[in-house]
Amino acid sequence: MSLILAVRRAAQVRPRGAAVIDAERTIGWRELEGRIARIAGRLRELGVEPGTRVATLALNSPMYFELLLAVWWCGGVLVPLNTRLAADEIRYILGHAETSLVLADTDMAGLAEAAATPGPAQLVVVDEAMHRDLLQGPAIDAAAPDYEATAAIFYTGGTTGLPKGVELSHRNFAFAASGMLRDLRLGPSSVYLHAAPMFHLADFGIGLGVTMGAGAHSFLARFTPEDVYRRLRDDGVTHLNLVPTMLAAVLDAPCRDDRLLAQVTHISYGAAPITPALLERVLQGFPRAAINQFYGMTECCGASVFLAPERHVLDGPMAGKLKAAGQAIPGFELRIADPEGRPLPAGAVGEILMRGAPVMKGYWKDPAQTEAALAGGWLHSGDGGYLDEDGFLYVVDRIKDMIVSGGENIYCSEVESALAGHPAVQACAVVGLPDDKWGERVHAVVVRKAGARVSADELREHVRGRIAGYKAPKSYEFADALPLSAVGKVQKKALREQCLQRSKDSHD
Amino acid sequence: MSLILAVRRAAQVRPRGAAVIDAERTIGWRELEGRIARIAGRLRELGVEPGTRVATLALNSPMYFELLLAVWWCGGVLVPLNTRLAADEIRYILGHAETSLVLADTDMAGLAEAAATPGPAQLVVVDEAMHRDLLQGPAIDAAAPDYEATAAIFYTGGTTGLPKGVELSHRNFAFAASGMLRDLRLGPSSVYLHAAPMFHLADFGIGLGVTMGAGAHSFLARFTPEDVYRRLRDDGVTHLNLVPTMLAAVLDAPCRDDRLLAQVTHISYGAAPITPALLERVLQGFPRAAINQFYGMTECCGASVFLAPERHVLDGPMAGKLKAAGQAIPGFELRIADPEGRPLPAGAVGEILMRGAPVMKGYWKDPAQTEAALAGGWLHSGDGGYLDEDGFLYVVDRIKDMIVSGGENIYCSEVESALAGHPAVQACAVVGLPDDKWGERVHAVVVRKAGARVSADELREHVRGRIAGYKAPKSYEFADALPLSAVGKVQKKALREQCLQRSKDSHD
Repeated sequence: MSLILAVRRAAQVRPRGAAVIDAERTIGWRELEGRIARIAGRLRELGVEPGTRVATLALNSPMYFELLLAVWWCGGVLVPLNTRLAADEIRYILGHAETSLVLADTDMAGLAEAAATPGPAQLVVVDEAMHRDLLQGPAIDAAAPDYEATAAIFYTGGTTGLPKGVELSHRNFAFAASGMLRDLRLGPSSVYLHAAPMFHLADFGIGLGVTMGAGAHSFLARFTPEDVYRRLRDDGVTHLNLVPTMLAAVLDAPCRDDRLLAQVTHISYGAAPITPALLERVLQGFPRAAINQFYGMTECCGASVFLAPERHVLDGPMAGKLKAAGQAIPGFELRIADPEGRPLPAGAVGEILMRGAPVMKGYWKDPAQTEAALAGGWLHSGDGGYLDEDGFLYVVDRIKDMIVSGGENIYCSEVESALAGHPAVQACAVVGLPDDKWGERVHAVVVRKAGARVSADELREHVRGRIAGYKAPKSYEFADALPLSAVGKVQKKALREQCLQRSKDSHD
Repeated sequence: MSLILAVRRAAQVRPRGAAVIDAERTIGWRELEGRIARIAGRLRELGVEPGTRVATLALNSPMYFELLLAVWWCGGVLVPLNTRLAADEIRYILGHAETSLVLADTDMAGLAEAAATPGPAQLVVVDEAMHRDLLQGPAIDAAAPDYEATAAIFYTGGTTGLPKGVELSHRNFAFAASGMLRDLRLGPSSVYLHAAPMFHLADFGIGLGVTMGAGAHSFLARFTPEDVYRRLRDDGVTHLNLVPTMLAAVLDAPCRDDRLLAQVTHISYGAAPITPALLERVLQGFPRAAINQFYGMTECCGASVFLAPERHVLDGPMAGKLKAAGQAIPGFELRIADPEGRPLPAGAVGEILMRGAPVMKGYWKDPAQTEAALAGGWLHSGDGGYLDEDGFLYVVDRIKDMIVSGGENIYCSEVESALAGHPAVQACAVVGLPDDKWGERVHAVVVRKAGARVSADELREHVRGRIAGYKAPKSYEFADALPLSAVGKVQKKALREQCLQRSKDSHD
């Protein structure tokens, strides 16, 4: 499909240049093109036709990268699964997306089996032998470009408690990747480290930009500062995409090597603004790096707002915007709107709306939520914010009931549904509390049924396997009642303030 | 429509920054947005609805720029007319495109009147008073983005003798503009000089990239080296797009000012490769400029191939590619194919095919030519060429019977049809001969009817008004017969060689 064109171009303009840098060897672009065509041939034999949904469940690796591109080479629709989901969540997604095939690596084989068998989707665990077999497939021609065809369905936590499938077209990806190519100055001499999970759109989109620019890919299965330094040294990484806490971890690592940090030309981060203190350390630690902040969401195929390198300064005329998420990326338009969708002037807080070519087709098989999210032709982010006089966006609040912890979006309703399933729970609510390591942590407030007894440990045990570990509350408290609005809804803002106050009191 | 989003973004992120630099004053992006919304309101009153075709006939100016954007603000379809066409050609296009409205400036009022009246399309000559009136229109909301909607129909000379309407979508333009933004490093501090005509896609596409990047526009009604220096001085121009002969004229000008040349950061050129001798002078004359060559066609919304700045060197490891048109631009895929469309290996000459998101929807109201041009999902350029082992494209020949003179494409069949209309002409053929000033010049070979008499001057008079002046043969010769193939087609290659030989002989 359309992004496959980028692979074919890379093979034409940089045939012997590195496409994938692996521990054992480097694969050039022309060789990689051939490998993908053969894997695609085997996938075709397994029934992958244009439009077939193929789920993937794997840690970052060159093999995973090849599988993703081979599915597109066949014209298939990717359903990249978060490896931290619980088996029940994956089972739901496989059914909802009507997935025909699940490709898992050996690390994820257990989870994939628990989720996919028995089930209608065929599970293929791609161990070394299977990878070799896939590479023996008959090379097939790539599907013809079709920009409006669906390229992928990325599932995100849902405000209703069920994951929603964000349906993205090849046009969405081609635009988003083109933006990354431009803003990160990706090109033939770039080496990008896939440090964040590839099933996340942030990494996925940058990776496509790297491919469009015929650059090289390097992979980290799991983030550790030591492995970042190893990849910097062995693979010559030039481009890093990390959340601020990871950047800090790299700078704080005992194995810190300033010579390696100096080879980094571009750093991007997201999920949270950078503090002046951390920025100072980053500017000092990475003396050659241009620094970009991205803000966006799966529904707009990645980033729609960016804070450019020239704004990542601590003084001078360009300083003073570090608390902003940034300005609209070229090709996007931003609006702050009141609840009726009417535009608000600079300075006024409202919901952040956006539009542009990368905005999703909609939620898969969910016309009602699609209509709500895309009302009036604008994507409704669910985040609250305001624009200043220079068009800089400040995110002040989430209108959606969501917590961002360690770079992952956690929808409170999903966590609350899991907790409420315990027989001793009468009512419950979760809120995000500030956390040095995670940005925010999930905190649960539970009201027990009259006479019932349940401990935090018992609740921990209860949610395990029902929801992903990263969504599980990190702390619990028990209360007699929750603050309710006139119509009986939990007042999250008030609850959160109470929790903060109690936590402050307990520290005093 | 979709590119209007770029205007709205520019007004948001750079409200007071220069959008248009005019002799008299500078218009900021927020002010320009308001002007366009009001002009659009007046155009709406004149009947411009989404889908309405609006032809424009004007020299480069800020006013022209506003009109183009105002038509898109209404959702209208642009039909930008070449100001050098003859009235009959324009009349044909207005009818074929079913144009409702023609907007002309005062310079073009005479030609517009000759072409449009009487006729079904309403002609509005936008003189100063009319411009003021348009600016009094009621501001209207911009049409919602629709990426697959038709944005413009650009007419090009046709191989059949009639102009063809290249139908381009907002998606085509958004991609093409995004590529220009990236490759020319356009941004808020860029000042682009519209030196080539804005009705040409080369300039039009770069202009959209400037708008996407919230840069500034400066305008040249007609190219003269003196005016280029004036704009450099008064407007602070940083980006130039010129054909090689114009670059040479700027460097050769008596008013040459090296200080002004040094402020240029980016130069792009097209239509012909640059000679090492000229490149040496350009590198010396413009010490800070990154130099790009673009190759493409209207049918792919501008450039699909580029020779990057690092290749514009005379020695070192990156040198040696100056005769190439360049490599595929990210987002495009190139192929060299045999007459059956099968891919040919590196080094083999065949037709240049291309595909990618900016490729046209098709030829307006011409399904047969559309199918031929887009056979197998590839745009057939009609140019012959080959790729080297590094994916560099070399254009060696035109498969279409076309001459490029002074940056304009001239289809021989159009010129031959005009000549053949003279009662004394029995047969005729035109070929392109090398020309120092124009690259190629149109040369006509005419066979007179038995007993008939006609001179070159009479033929010159005959074609005037029937075809644009730039298409008219610059030289004539009379012959007893034309070299014909077995099936009776003129053998252009043999004829051209004969003409070259005769011209050489006459110089010896």
